[in-house]
Parts: sequence; structure tokens; C-alpha cells
Amino acid sequence: MAETGSAAATDLPLKRPRDDGEKEANNNNNGSVLMEMDSNKQPDCISSVIPGWFSEISPMWPGEAHSLKVEKILFQGKSDYQNVMVFQSSTYGKVLILDGVIQLTERDECAYQEMITHLPLCSIPNPKKVLVIGGGDGGVLREVSRHSSVEKIDICEIDKMVVDVSKQFFPDVAVGFEDPRVTLHIGDGVAFLKAVPEGTYDAVIVDSSDPIGPAQELFEKPFFESVAKALRPGGVVSTQAESIWLHMHIIEDIVANCRQIFKGSVNYAWTTVPTYPSGVIGFMLCSTEGPPVDFKHPVNPIDADDSNCNSSKGPLKFYNSEIHTAAFCLPTFAKKVIESKNEKI
Amino acid sequence: MAETGSAAATDLPLKRPRDDGEKEANNNNNGSVLMEMDSNKQPDCISSVIPGWFSEISPMWPGEAHSLKVEKILFQGKSDYQNVMVFQSSTYGKVLILDGVIQLTERDECAYQEMITHLPLCSIPNPKKVLVIGGGDGGVLREVSRHSSVEKIDICEIDKMVVDVSKQFFPDVAVGFEDPRVTLHIGDGVAFLKAVPEGTYDAVIVDSSDPIGPAQELFEKPFFESVAKALRPGGVVSTQAESIWLHMHIIEDIVANCRQIFKGSVNYAWTTVPTYPSGVIGFMLCSTEGPPVDFKHPVNPIDADDSNCNSSKGPLKFYNSEIHTAAFCLPTFAKKVIESKNEKI
Repeated sequence: MAETGSAAATDLPLKRPRDDGEKEANNNNNGSVLMEMDSNKQPDCISSVIPGWFSEISPMWPGEAHSLKVEKILFQGKSDYQNVMVFQSSTYGKVLILDGVIQLTERDECAYQEMITHLPLCSIPNPKKVLVIGGGDGGVLREVSRHSSVEKIDICEIDKMVVDVSKQFFPDVAVGFEDPRVTLHIGDGVAFLKAVPEGTYDAVIVDSSDPIGPAQELFEKPFFESVAKALRPGGVVSTQAESIWLHMHIIEDIVANCRQIFKGSVNYAWTTVPTYPSGVIGFMLCSTEGPPVDFKHPVNPIDADDSNCNSSKGPLKFYNSEIHTAAFCLPTFAKKVIESKNEKI
Repeated sequence: MAETGSAAATDLPLKRPRDDGEKEANNNNNGSVLMEMDSNKQPDCISSVIPGWFSEISPMWPGEAHSLKVEKILFQGKSDYQNVMVFQSSTYGKVLILDGVIQLTERDECAYQEMITHLPLCSIPNPKKVLVIGGGDGGVLREVSRHSSVEKIDICEIDKMVVDVSKQFFPDVAVGFEDPRVTLHIGDGVAFLKAVPEGTYDAVIVDSSDPIGPAQELFEKPFFESVAKALRPGGVVSTQAESIWLHMHIIEDIVANCRQIFKGSVNYAWTTVPTYPSGVIGFMLCSTEGPPVDFKHPVNPIDADDSNCNSSKGPLKFYNSEIHTAAFCLPTFAKKVIESKNEKI
């Protein structure tokens, strides 16, 4: 989930202190990582320290925190958009942190990258033109490039530092940039999409951070309208859509928006990612009016034993056709809410 | 996952300090919960403090910790088997901790209790006699009692303090004890099973803690042999079977053991539980030789709109027939390992 969103993050309403410079990631004497916040302004954000550990605390998941033991801080920088940090953890490999939030770990990134990519691309025959919004770490590109039918892959990432850091510290993720079909655009995904000629893409993948901060626009109706316009009839979009355990109120709104805008299919799927809050992450899978798309029954399988998996990208670790279909089966508490917004699910 | 196992916990090999009194749960002045461990003897267990928070650190999941914000400590005690603690968390309701490990929270207990119970009971027609090993909080009983075909429910829990604490602090979980079909046996589950006449039960549910400490025997071959003997032909067992992200080496052994002992079906299923390490928990679902059991296609559905859900137990929150089938779909990395042990999955 690399950061993306408006080119001018400061123009957006800010609901948490991730973009206002109130906190800094520091490496103190004993190697612990302190994410200091102004407790007067952010009563939900207390200082969090397990000595030698990184703790992820946010008003997006109040009252809980996941912590990883830090072996060594490898990089700390501040881009025009966010704080960027990379550390070597003791058991999850290298970890990429943006504004205090875990974006990926080497150990479990496969689940997110493979599912957000293959859920849409395996649901349509012969995808040719694919757009990735965000995804600056390159992991989604790596997965898109497994599809031999794809001829052109555009990616629009707002923060060049994410791309550079990923190429330096996460070569097995950033390998996606090496595909000759890829064109990297550094810039605002919202503006990029508005300039795209109607019906350009077979698939759009929105690999965004959370909807509070610079990525907020990526969860709103005008953005989804731009996505729908950029897709061909029967084209598909996959967007990061938060956790059923933590964010049903956000998911409810996204589903309602998508139902208004996407006249084909509108579905919610989810998967396990241990280092994301509550251990799960969801995706909205939608298609535009045109040839019907049945997301639950993939027509374009790509499984671990496919020959295209034996390259420098390594084999698929997580995705297979069975887990594709299973991802659309929701716990009753989530199903009830989502079905109430979407009679077709 | 209430604690159970050998009656004499000190007879078992101890691999972590949960049973040797080296640590104590303390409520210090500012309300924070300290789980102090002897760092000389347990190098992986560092002292963990976020002021006002409970942090779960264990050699079973090295290098990571999940923390919950504590509003108030409600109970702290030491039984013959373990330290027992209950606290009010700020966002997950009341929480039950045994030996420093989260057993249940009011917010997400539905996922574990419903899945470990209905995966086996919905897979056979008309279950009549059910045995629960462990499960002293009563949540599995609550779920078993939704099945109107059931005539007799035995439960063998080693630690009476778990039962008493659950009745006092978790009435919506312990409601399971109120069913007149339930008989509670306080004692060693291993010994109880050995004394059961052959072929007594239609289903056995093993709601155990982790395999290091008093529950260790519940993951070993002699215990599975006792379970198989206690089941009727074509009877089913469901056991807590750890996390695909953290414990594939343990799961591999369990699958190999079960394949030797259970001559019907042997399957692994999993579900999401945010407050368990890595956010998932798995189950072994096995059947004895006899009428064949196809766990993936439940023959005895119990869904949220069933009339038996409108009682004091409240409706099903998590389980439905779709998520039953989906639970058996594994990520590729887990599928490969499990299939290598079990050609029939």
C-alpha cells in the first residue's frame, strides 16, 4: 500500500497528524523507534514505546497496536508527502513504514500484492492495458507482469521517494519496475486519471494508503467516477478497501458509492495480512457496464505452476483460484451490512 | 481457547515460562499491565510495557506483539494451572488472558467459537452426543447448543477458575453452561478421554491453548488416538490448530499425525481472529472410518436466520455456509506444505 493521492497533500482536510509534521520518527540510543505525537491535539495517539520495537498506533484503529521488534533502522527520510522509514525486523524481514503505518513487510507482502492484482486480472479474459494508482513499491507491478496478455502497464505514484527506497531496500518487490511494459509517472493519481482518454484501460488497480490524509480523495465519488470513465466497457477496478473488523462504516460508504457509479458488478473481497491492523484487508472489485464480469468465478486463471512464475519474480506464494473465490465469502456481520447497500452481492 | 490439558502441568516439559511462576501479572500505579519475565532464562521474552496497555509477547510468535489499551483490570488470580486475568479494554470489550496470552475478547470471540464448533457439527447429519475438551469459557457450548439434534453435551475443562471467571465477567459467552444438555467435568481432558467407552460421541471439539505448556499433550499422537477411539464410525473432531503464518512446522506435524490416525477425512481450515497472533487461527477437521464426511460441503446447515438463533444466545455473527466452505481454501504456501503431508486434501 504505497502512498498516493493529491499532489498537494496540505490542501486536504487532515484528520490525523500524519501530514502536519507534528511527529518525527527518531532512532534513539537503544535503537527503539519512537513515534511521538502531540497528545494535546491527538488524544487517541499516546506515545508508544516497547524499547527496541516499532509500535503502530493510529486513530484508524484506536485501542490496539501491533509491534515489530527492530534489528536495525535502514532508512529514514521525509519526502514532500510523508515520513518514509525502512527497518530490518527480527522476524518479518525488512519493513516499509509511511507516516508511522506499516505498508509492507517482506514476510507477508505476497498476500496483499497478489490478491489486489489477480482478483481483478484473473476475472477478465486477456487484460491488455493496466493502470496502477499508488503502488510505488512495485509489488503490484510485479504481479501484473505475470500476465502475458498485458501489453502496457502505467503506474502513477505521487511520491518518488517511495519508488527509490523500494528499489534500494526491497529488490524482490521493486522488481516489478524492470518490466519493459511499465511506464512510471510520478504525480497525482487523481489528476492523472482525469487526463486519461475515456475507455483506455482494461483494469485499474488502486493501491492506496488509508482514507485519512493524502489518499482521502481515492475513496470518494469523483475519483471512482474518473476510474469508471478511464475503463473500457466491462473493465474492472480493484481498490484497497480497509478492514471488515475495524472499518465497516467506511466500507459501507464505499460500497454505496460504487453501486451508484459502476453499473456492472460491485463486490467486496478480503484476505489475511498479519501486519495490517486486525490482520485482514479488503478490496472493492467493480466492473463497468459492458460484457458482464463474474468476479467470484475467475475466467483467466494464473496458478503457482504456470510457466510465467518461474522467472526472476519467483513463484506465486499466496494466490490460487480457490482462494480467489473464497475471498468473496464474508462473515455474516459484514455480509449483512454490505448486502444492505448492494442488493446484487 | 480456554486452558486445558494434563492435570499435572508441572509434569510436562516446559518451553516457556507460563507455568513456572517466573512472571506475575501486576497492575501498577498508572493502570498498566506488566508481564515480567526472567530475561536471562527466556531471551525471547523481553519486558513489555506500553503505559496503560496490555502487550502479548511470546516465543510462540517471536518479534511481534499485539497490544490492547486497558481501561480497568477486573480480575487477577492464580489457579493451580495458570495466571488468570480479565480486563476491560478500550475498544475490544472485556478480555480474558491466561498466562499472558489473549484467549478471547468480547468483540471478536464470535469468529473462533462459531467456526471451531459449526465446521464439525454442520458437516454431519444430526449430531447427538458432543464432547468439548477445554472450552471453559463456555463459548463453544453456546454454539453447540444451537444444534437442536444434540441430546448430550459433555465438557471437560481442567481449570475451574476459568469457568468461574467466565460466568462472572463474560455472561454472553458462559451462557453456554445454562443449557440443560450440558454436563461439566472439571479435570484432565486426556484422562477423561481415555475413560470414555469406544464410539461414544458423534463429535469432539478440542478448544485448547497453544501446544507449549499444559495443553501440549493435546497436540500429540496418543491424544488423537484417544479422540478417534471415543468417536463413532464417521464421527468428527475439530481441534485448534494454530496459525498458517506462524506455525507451519507445528501444523505439518499435526497433519501427519492425523493422517495416520483418522482413516476418514483429514482437512485444515482457517479463519480470521484479529486478537490472535498473526490475525488468523486454524482448525484440524478429521473424521473416523465409517460413513464418509465431506467437510467442505456441509450437510447440516445452520445459518443466521434459523429460528434457533433468536434465543438468549443471540444470532450467529460470523458463521454461514459460504464461509464454511471458504475456510478450507488455503493460500498456496500453506496448501503446498499440507498437501505434501496429506495426499487426500
